Amino acid sequence: MPISIEQHKTYIHDALVHAGANPRHAAVTADALCLADSWGTFTHGSKLLKGYTRRIRAGGCRSDVDPQIVNDGPSFALIDGNSTLGQVAGTFAMETAIEKARETGVAYCGVFNSCHLGAVGVYPTMAARNDMIGIAMGNDIPSVAAPGSKTAVLGTNPFSYSVPAGKHHPILLDMAMSTVAGGKVYAANQLGNPIPNNWIVDRDGKATTDSSLYPADAALQPLGGYKGYGLGLMIESLSGLLSGANLTWDIKAWMTADPAGPTHHGAAFLAFNVGAMQNLDSFKERVDGLIDQIHETPTADGVDQLFVAGEFEWNRYQKSVDSGIDLPADVIAALNAMADEIEFRRPNNT
Amino acid sequence: MPISIEQHKTYIHDALVHAGANPRHAAVTADALCLADSWGTFTHGSKLLKGYTRRIRAGGCRSDVDPQIVNDGPSFALIDGNSTLGQVAGTFAMETAIEKARETGVAYCGVFNSCHLGAVGVYPTMAARNDMIGIAMGNDIPSVAAPGSKTAVLGTNPFSYSVPAGKHHPILLDMAMSTVAGGKVYAANQLGNPIPNNWIVDRDGKATTDSSLYPADAALQPLGGYKGYGLGLMIESLSGLLSGANLTWDIKAWMTADPAGPTHHGAAFLAFNVGAMQNLDSFKERVDGLIDQIHETPTADGVDQLFVAGEFEWNRYQKSVDSGIDLPADVIAALNAMADEIEFRRPNNT
Repeated sequence: MPISIEQHKTYIHDALVHAGANPRHAAVTADALCLADSWGTFTHGSKLLKGYTRRIRAGGCRSDVDPQIVNDGPSFALIDGNSTLGQVAGTFAMETAIEKARETGVAYCGVFNSCHLGAVGVYPTMAARNDMIGIAMGNDIPSVAAPGSKTAVLGTNPFSYSVPAGKHHPILLDMAMSTVAGGKVYAANQLGNPIPNNWIVDRDGKATTDSSLYPADAALQPLGGYKGYGLGLMIESLSGLLSGANLTWDIKAWMTADPAGPTHHGAAFLAFNVGAMQNLDSFKERVDGLIDQIHETPTADGVDQLFVAGEFEWNRYQKSVDSGIDLPADVIAALNAMADEIEFRRPNNT
Repeated sequence: MPISIEQHKTYIHDALVHAGANPRHAAVTADALCLADSWGTFTHGSKLLKGYTRRIRAGGCRSDVDPQIVNDGPSFALIDGNSTLGQVAGTFAMETAIEKARETGVAYCGVFNSCHLGAVGVYPTMAARNDMIGIAMGNDIPSVAAPGSKTAVLGTNPFSYSVPAGKHHPILLDMAMSTVAGGKVYAANQLGNPIPNNWIVDRDGKATTDSSLYPADAALQPLGGYKGYGLGLMIESLSGLLSGANLTWDIKAWMTADPAGPTHHGAAFLAFNVGAMQNLDSFKERVDGLIDQIHETPTADGVDQLFVAGEFEWNRYQKSVDSGIDLPADVIAALNAMADEIEFRRPNNT
């Protein structure tokens, strides 16, 4: 049974508060997780709550402190996440970037000592809602090989941007630097399906179609070989090196590492103040025009229409607004398990 | 016979001046083309000179004016390229971004009414030489399909970044948003080799291994499907929409369009002032440490060592510095044809 966005958000908020999060942190995190669910990005929505509440209860994710700016200038800030939830630090960082971009045109915020960002597309969406172009990215413990490596070298290092439009929803891309997410390899294995030979490499660094090797004896392949590997290194540079955050193997796996300790993720956020540079209405008309042009492009047999990045998500979002979010079974199971673990009520729709 | 960097640069400069470029524009462009040749990126070095001199002589690339800032703020500038050579506008834009980032921390420069950028890696390298992280990108007339399209939707939209290091050369990635460059498809066709089925699509939008279809009856495939397509749209947004430049089909093909007219390319440049955010020496040590860690990663059979983006180019650069640039036959042929066309001396080494 679909659950309304507000009801779902309230449940997430209340569960986080029950686990020990302060109401401000809970509200920010509920917004982010609920937005991901409303996009249909269920792998990065309230399914994550179980891991988050565990870290909050154990103290690895703190809610007695706020993220804080430790160094800033007119168009940048470096932010100590203070081991708060990634959504708390990420939201603060993107808000700070937006504020600074309002003054100077463009701003960068780097975050260190943070945690898992969740759906990284949440943050550029904040920028787009403020009529800005937004970019967000984060580093993570390695799971992606480099071309020619036997083992993982960089994290999936998610990257996202959003561009505000007029009549259309904002352009919104949210992607990792691996060919596919690890979850797709898991799913193929569960279904007994073989996988294409550009998804993972085995422990010898050879491409393999055997999904059962992942993750114990395999690493994800980088998107398009050296290109995805090189872009992953850019994300490591902007979200790890420039922010002063931990890098690669010095980051902890947020789901499996000791929940009482920090994970030390890094992240980077950019905001571009469109209105400072262009007439905002004309800009949005041009974005709409570009989207229209793409929509009108002739398509191959079996393809009804081309889409721009984010359209699937915004279409599902509109459906969620209109008739609620239809949480899949795995999300409901995770929410129930979370509720039982923290001794909180199960969600109504289960 | 290898030619020294200085001798090569002087030749390029003199040819540009002979064709009508003013000495400042010629010097900037010679630097850029010679740097690309010294990296071994011969597709984007002095081989381009023939097309550039043709546009200068016909008036489509102007050298009687300079690029100019038409709107700026503390951390951004919009620049009218005034139809100068892309290297002239791009270099001015990156210099402007570096200057502004020195004051505020981070800066963006958007360029409209520009031309072909050449090797886009040239511009972030300027930032790295100023101890900054640099990013550059540009749009172009469509040659890359979207997943499901019959025709090209976006340009190859090159993207590059560079990160300054300490004992190591700067990290430097220079890539297009297609799986491979069109030149690789040409080369496969000339050699009679089949191509992988993720390089091009035919006029029905179907993946094909028939390289002879390109470019008349085929479009390049985007890197990794929707990911490369989505990143291409980001580049269109930052270098076309935000800069106020022309988009997609409103850009002219710089090599084939009327050389007497402007091409209206757009471009975007970002500079991140590392020293404003981190202790510069410590930052560079961390970059070196990350590169060392990658070098020490166990490699698959047949792979001696992992490299980070740019290492091939910097190794060839060092060889060019030490013993000159060994221009391949196709570059020499292009230089000879250029020299004959503009009635200038042929290069000494031919």
